[in-house]
Amino acid sequence: MTVRVEPRLLKGFRDFLPAEEAGRAWMLARITRAFSLCGFAPLSTPAIEYADVLLGKYGVEGEKLLYRFTDNGGRDVALRYDLTVPLARVAAQYRDLPKPFRRFQVGTVWRAEKPAHGRFREFVQCDADIVGTASPLADADCIAAGILALRSLGLTRFAVRIGNRAVLNGLLATAGIADPAVCVEVLRILDKMDKVGSDAVRTMLDAQEGVGPDAAGRLLTLLDRAQSDVGGLDLPESAQAGRDQLLGVLAALRAMGLADHVRVDLRIARGLDYYTGNVFETMLDDLPGMGSVMSGGRYDSLLEMYGVPAIPSVGISIGVDRLFAALAELGQAPTGGAGPAVIVCPMGDGALDAALGLVAALREAGVAAEPVPEPSARLKKQLEYAARRSARFAAILGETEVAEGVATVKDFTTGEQVRVPWAQVAAHVGGAG
Amino acid sequence: MTVRVEPRLLKGFRDFLPAEEAGRAWMLARITRAFSLCGFAPLSTPAIEYADVLLGKYGVEGEKLLYRFTDNGGRDVALRYDLTVPLARVAAQYRDLPKPFRRFQVGTVWRAEKPAHGRFREFVQCDADIVGTASPLADADCIAAGILALRSLGLTRFAVRIGNRAVLNGLLATAGIADPAVCVEVLRILDKMDKVGSDAVRTMLDAQEGVGPDAAGRLLTLLDRAQSDVGGLDLPESAQAGRDQLLGVLAALRAMGLADHVRVDLRIARGLDYYTGNVFETMLDDLPGMGSVMSGGRYDSLLEMYGVPAIPSVGISIGVDRLFAALAELGQAPTGGAGPAVIVCPMGDGALDAALGLVAALREAGVAAEPVPEPSARLKKQLEYAARRSARFAAILGETEVAEGVATVKDFTTGEQVRVPWAQVAAHVGGAG
Repeated sequence: MTVRVEPRLLKGFRDFLPAEEAGRAWMLARITRAFSLCGFAPLSTPAIEYADVLLGKYGVEGEKLLYRFTDNGGRDVALRYDLTVPLARVAAQYRDLPKPFRRFQVGTVWRAEKPAHGRFREFVQCDADIVGTASPLADADCIAAGILALRSLGLTRFAVRIGNRAVLNGLLATAGIADPAVCVEVLRILDKMDKVGSDAVRTMLDAQEGVGPDAAGRLLTLLDRAQSDVGGLDLPESAQAGRDQLLGVLAALRAMGLADHVRVDLRIARGLDYYTGNVFETMLDDLPGMGSVMSGGRYDSLLEMYGVPAIPSVGISIGVDRLFAALAELGQAPTGGAGPAVIVCPMGDGALDAALGLVAALREAGVAAEPVPEPSARLKKQLEYAARRSARFAAILGETEVAEGVATVKDFTTGEQVRVPWAQVAAHVGGAG
Repeated sequence: MTVRVEPRLLKGFRDFLPAEEAGRAWMLARITRAFSLCGFAPLSTPAIEYADVLLGKYGVEGEKLLYRFTDNGGRDVALRYDLTVPLARVAAQYRDLPKPFRRFQVGTVWRAEKPAHGRFREFVQCDADIVGTASPLADADCIAAGILALRSLGLTRFAVRIGNRAVLNGLLATAGIADPAVCVEVLRILDKMDKVGSDAVRTMLDAQEGVGPDAAGRLLTLLDRAQSDVGGLDLPESAQAGRDQLLGVLAALRAMGLADHVRVDLRIARGLDYYTGNVFETMLDDLPGMGSVMSGGRYDSLLEMYGVPAIPSVGISIGVDRLFAALAELGQAPTGGAGPAVIVCPMGDGALDAALGLVAALREAGVAAEPVPEPSARLKKQLEYAARRSARFAAILGETEVAEGVATVKDFTTGEQVRVPWAQVAAHVGGAG
């Protein structure tokens, strides 16, 4: 016991002390409730998986970010990178799960990213997915669940952007951009729109080999038009199925009264390898630089990698940590009451037993209560402790109170002090608190 | 995308599918509520810590069970083994946390144990601790929080066993057993009491070198007497402070009306290196072989290892996984309703928009609802889906219903079917559900 170790955190990891953690717990409870309301059921999977279960799904860059190691038994394992691939593993492993399988999962994921402002190596995702149907209703219902979740946190000004890879490819072809390598470069440039603006993007596209001013102009016009009238676009045959998917989602969300929160944006091309159809991102109107707070898409081929027939699937993922930071920046940070309702203060050892009995009775009645840590301390110190704990009430028990079976209940918000029989303290503070 | 991987779990790790996970979520919510009622506030710490932060606290055998690896940046790191050591790290790192600091934490921990019946490599702990006071009131309040948590799960037949290392050592000395190496052997034998019974323990003690029949008899008599009258035991000076701690906890729990759930048992000698005073274990009366479902103790020296002055601390930890298994064995397994309240069934594409509108309105009103996945399927198939989802109601919208602004609401529990205006469906099913 003589080696002294510096108490410290790993870079990119965080502690959440009570005031902050109470707010996070409130957020998770709200999101969980929204997902349940939308008919999603909870699932839990391990943090550690065989590495091969996770490999080959996140792209080369994604894979480098895995926390991968050899366990004590010599197995090649890794911490989960997201909740989607574990879900696909579950769906492939338990083949008799009734489909469509609607599940939500709240869980920590790990990515060895370069830590930066708002980017962490450990964070919590809240996912809602539907496995086993290609219907655009499923895409819409995942998005609807996400919108409800965001609204339940008090957010109103945000837009879910919906894209589709097949439609985007068709649109590039229509604009005259066909070379796959050039397409990749174009997507990379389009991805910068939010950061650098459309003029700068135009300049970059003009200068891009294989594009040039003519194709660039056509492409930007088409992208623009797609936002309001994706149905009217002139697209090649290969893009028709994708367009139907996209239109189906829009129609369903309109019928659900959620059209105001949704817009078509074909520039979206999520980085993960497993997306196959519609893709989603969500930006806060007031914090566009924050990046997407809710993302997802369709992954109809992912399950094939586990040797089972393709099972069409779709889902969304809410990034709780980014959202928490966003709410704070917007001045809407959730603040949990981290303190109890009542601190019970015995004056002298003779009152201690009665005080502890009152604490127990209050808790039994559903009122958060605790005894002062130092029952022999002077009243002034005890009340200071109660204030430091952010308690609303102090229940004081001196010799007289104990003899009469009452407590002197002090309300810190009003300064009011009244004598209340023990059996009525819970109702007294419960009605007020 | 051609390599096929077997979808499988690592040994000792588990998936929790919705029916089970809903029950676990219910348990965690109950325990969290009990801890909050007792004035504990939430804390969250990372799953990964610098290895040196965790080393030297769990004993040689414990340390072997760490998931320890080198991260991408070459750092020596490990997954947390419990929630107590991270709490100590937090208390040492944020020196200005107001004390006493009462926190609870619900979190996953990892131990590379040999998997066995009821023993896993990943499991969830729910801890309540008080950092910064040596008062036995704090020990009692942690135990009280744990008892409330267990009772809130419907458990009534259980006992918290309280021991104290200093008192146990004093008692060994009084019995005439002083050699430290012999003491270790004696503790190992006493630990088998639950499994092999007192006769077998007596035989082993009789045969133990350095003990013999006389000392064995004295020891067992003293241990027996300690259960009912630890205050009356003849103990050496070195054990007096420990006895006062123990008596203080018992008195406080008695004042809280919890004496029925508490008993003195000096045989308890928790394996972890960091315990210094009172130690606790909790056995279910009906499943003694299950082992302890709630354990803890005082760790007054742990923080010194981080180079800060000793800060007296105490806590309890509930093993949720073992408890979940216990509730199942007792026939009290919590079952969550994993399905939604209402499945909305449009008959034909003409009713789809109205159906989706009804889904949205129900959710807005706080009623869990979802549309059928295949709106063009026949009604019989749609109702089969609703039954498979364990929904209580189906709301059917055909052409007539849409024209009249009503839904035909079928109650699966009664078979009753009534026509309800859209605006009243939420109240209709909400009142019943």
